[in-house]
Order: sequence, then structure tokens, then C-alpha cells
Amino acid sequence: MAVSIAHLGPSGTYAEAAALVYSNWLAQSFQQEALLCPYPSIAQTLNAVALQQADLAVVPIENSIEGSVTMTLDTLWILDKLQIQRALILPISHALMSHATRIESIQTIYSHPQALAQCQAWLERHRPNAQLIPTNSTTEALQQLEHDRQAGAISSQRAALLYKVPILAHPINDHPDNCTRFWVLGLQSSPGGTHASLAFSVHDMPGALVKPLDIFAQQGINLSRIESRPTKRSLGDYLFFIDLEADTRQSFVQSALEELRHHTDTLKVLGCYDILPKRIVDLANL
Amino acid sequence: MAVSIAHLGPSGTYAEAAALVYSNWLAQSFQQEALLCPYPSIAQTLNAVALQQADLAVVPIENSIEGSVTMTLDTLWILDKLQIQRALILPISHALMSHATRIESIQTIYSHPQALAQCQAWLERHRPNAQLIPTNSTTEALQQLEHDRQAGAISSQRAALLYKVPILAHPINDHPDNCTRFWVLGLQSSPGGTHASLAFSVHDMPGALVKPLDIFAQQGINLSRIESRPTKRSLGDYLFFIDLEADTRQSFVQSALEELRHHTDTLKVLGCYDILPKRIVDLANL
Repeated sequence: MAVSIAHLGPSGTYAEAAALVYSNWLAQSFQQEALLCPYPSIAQTLNAVALQQADLAVVPIENSIEGSVTMTLDTLWILDKLQIQRALILPISHALMSHATRIESIQTIYSHPQALAQCQAWLERHRPNAQLIPTNSTTEALQQLEHDRQAGAISSQRAALLYKVPILAHPINDHPDNCTRFWVLGLQSSPGGTHASLAFSVHDMPGALVKPLDIFAQQGINLSRIESRPTKRSLGDYLFFIDLEADTRQSFVQSALEELRHHTDTLKVLGCYDILPKRIVDLANL
Repeated sequence: MAVSIAHLGPSGTYAEAAALVYSNWLAQSFQQEALLCPYPSIAQTLNAVALQQADLAVVPIENSIEGSVTMTLDTLWILDKLQIQRALILPISHALMSHATRIESIQTIYSHPQALAQCQAWLERHRPNAQLIPTNSTTEALQQLEHDRQAGAISSQRAALLYKVPILAHPINDHPDNCTRFWVLGLQSSPGGTHASLAFSVHDMPGALVKPLDIFAQQGINLSRIESRPTKRSLGDYLFFIDLEADTRQSFVQSALEELRHHTDTLKVLGCYDILPKRIVDLANL
């Protein structure tokens, strides 16, 4: 039976490209067929798995330029049943597309605010006076071009092909090493892997973060990322999301987590997982 | 001579309200007149001070629900001449406004993505099928109502009055304790205060954050906030923004900063400042 994979839609988003990479890998490694299911928001994508409408969700967690995808972190803190099964890193390359024949004639450019921000310097150099209009996804930007054929949109080359809109410039992102990290999540936990992700709240912020970090330092466990998010209760009250280079099957990692439990208010282990190798991502050739 | 204060415009934004609070306080405490100067983006607001087009900038740094305003952090890391002079915390209360007579007839709702996110539960309860359209500011959402009189906008009560649009529901934010912290920045550093803010990069992320945090813990200096941002060089490479409850005029704070310099790659002291008391903010009655 095909496994159903929820992702942020509509067709043509980077999230769909990540879901395709994962489903190609499932097909090649396990002869497992997959069915992609687009959802209108990241919250609804994750909820689909919590409500068992889909088996897996593929969601962006962090971009190398814009940082955390806060909607993913905030939703995962609430839906604590979901477990990370795998991570994958997708290169992001933006293109300017339009039915207009020349870049110079474009007065209006649509895209997701993150994509507009990632092409800021290019836009200031080539279209300093263009009006930049935010949309809910890069694909939605492309759909605007149906009504406004002289406008431009910033999206992926793949989306331009899907929606049959000519590409006028590519790549236009200011940083060539632009990439986004995605998590694949489901209701079952993976048996283990090279990375573990946690989320926790602490009683009192001041100084209270030193102890949790020190527990990992003492055990020689590398911390590859820390992110704070507001608890939404009051200003100055935070949650922390931490990524470790550690396998929770190892006993010293388990003791560190046990010790951490005594120094945190709520502790959630989001999963222990492997990262899909770069060659698998490149193979998908999206 | 009047002091010029740059802020995110146009008229009616929460950033303008924060700038008004500060200018009222300048007038009452120092008989200092102020001139408000709206700019189209946070980056341009901060740049105006760096380029000496304005004396001060008032910019949002953090919201209690949505977290960091990443544009402010990223721009401050680049423009290292700017110094924080003061902080202020503004209560945020959203209203739904429209020229339509009934909430039930509204099919489209415009607002800044952060405001839409902050009213998510209210919107799902009252207008679950309305199309939510992101705009560059809450004020720009109001301006859309000139073309589309049956649409709704989410903005402040003050903006509704300024633009003469009837309020249909207020407050509609999901969390009643919604507030935003702003910084007032200029080219001169303030003589000192109750809080200090720093930004630094570390050589190697794994474990490298423990030492900086430990320096402050050893000196009994409370950390009120930590935020990580990507360096934009490659995924997994971060900067850290830290707020301390400390006055940099005190010698033990100076020694802690001196020690920190040895354990960081680049260290920037963004300023040492006081927080404007709540009664001053309430007095402005915006």
C-alpha cells in the first residue's frame, strides 16, 4: 500500500520538492510507493499526521539565510505525538519568471516574504523601484501571473516548468549556498540515528540554560543548533529547541537525557534520526 | 532643534505608536521636540540613522507571540555603528475593521503575516473560510480597503481611527498578553542602564556556546534572552544575540565582557540601556 506524505502545497513549492526527494528514495530503497498530499499550511500539514489523515509529513525546519521556520517549531511543541524519522537538506535556487518579455518592464513582483528577502540585493540592483507583493507560498506568486501577465514572480525553476511561465533570470538568490533543512515526521519513532532533536522549557530563564548545555558538554555530545521560541504566555518566557549529534540508543546519551529531565520543566524528545545523504537529494534532480 | 525619529511606516503602524510613546516622553522629560520620519522597511529605518538622515530609529525587536523580528537582528549585525539608547514594551491589541456592515459578509482579510498569525484562532472560529492575504504592514492592509470595501483588515484601533474605517471586533488577538519590545537606537551610546545587549559569533558551534554562557553564570549575571541567527554563510553556522540584566559601567560586567572576547570570534556590544517604565507607555494612551 502506498504511504501518504503531507506537504505544504500547492504543486510547485519547495516543500513538495522535498517530499518528492523522500518518495523517490522510498521507491528506490524499499520499492515503497508514495502518494503526495498538499495542504494549505504547515500547521495543517503536521495536523494531518496527528489526525492520521496522512502517514508522514515533510516540513521545512530551517533555512540557511532566513533561519528557523517558526510555524514548524511552534506546531511541533503543541502536537507532541509526532516523531522525526529523517532529515534532508534541499538546495534552494530562485528564478525570476514572467510572461513579460523583458526584466525592465516588470513593475510588480510577487513571492513568499522569505523568497523576496533572499533575493533582496538582486532586486535592488535590477528592479529597485518594483513593488514587492508578499504571497502565502512561492507557487501562489506564480498563480498571480495568470491575472497580471506583466508582473513577475520569484519561485523555483521546477515551478516555472509546471506552470509554463518563462524564466527571465536564474539564479537570483543573493547567497549561492542557500538551502533548507526539512524533517520527515510520523507517529512512529525511528529506531535511532546520528542526530537527535529535543524541545524543553525551563523554570526560570536567567542562567537556567547553562545547566542543560553543560550536561551535553560534560558528556562530549556536540550541540549543532539551539533556537529559542516564546512560550506565548508572557514576554521573556521561552522554550528551547536543541539538535544534538547523538544517537539516543547509546547509554551515555540516555543518561544525559535523564539528567536533563531534572533540570527542565517539560522535556520532549522529538526524535533520533539520520540525514538523507546529499547524493540521494542530487539524484532526484528536481 | 527637533530630534528626528525614523520608524517603519506608513502612519498607523505599531512602530509609529512606539515612536510616539518615545517622543511624548522626550517632550515631557526634556522639553525636547521630535519629528517622526516613516520609512518603508526596518532595514531602511536603521540605515537612515547609519547614514545620518535621522537621529534615532525605533524598531521592533521581539513580539511575545511571534518571537524575534529577524530583520532587525540581521540588519543590526551588519550596521555595527548603532547603539541601543533605550527599550520600551508596547501592548499589542488587534482589531478587525471593514466598511462592510457585518463580520459574516467578509470574504477576504488583509494584514501583516504576524498579525494574521496572532489572530489565527479567532479567525478560524469566526471566519473559517475567509481568504487571508498577507501585506507588508498592518497599515497597508487598511489601504487595501479603499479598493475593496467588502474586505476586512486587521490593524490597531488607532489605525482604524486615522483611516476612518469602522471597527467590527476588538480585541481579536488569541493571546491577551500580546506585546512587542522595541529598541531606540542612535549613533551615540547611552551612559549605561539596567540591561545590556550583545551579539557574537563563535568559531565552532558544537559546545562553543557553553563557555560564553558560563562566564555570565559565574559572575551571577542574569541572561534574560538568547537568540540564534544564521550567519548566511552555510547551514549550521550561527550568530547569537544575548540580553543581560547588567550595567556595563560595573567593573565585574566589564571583566566578563573582556573574558567573553577571548571565547568569541566577533563580539559586538549593541548597547547598555534602561527600559521605559510601563506608566510612561500607558500615559501616551495610543
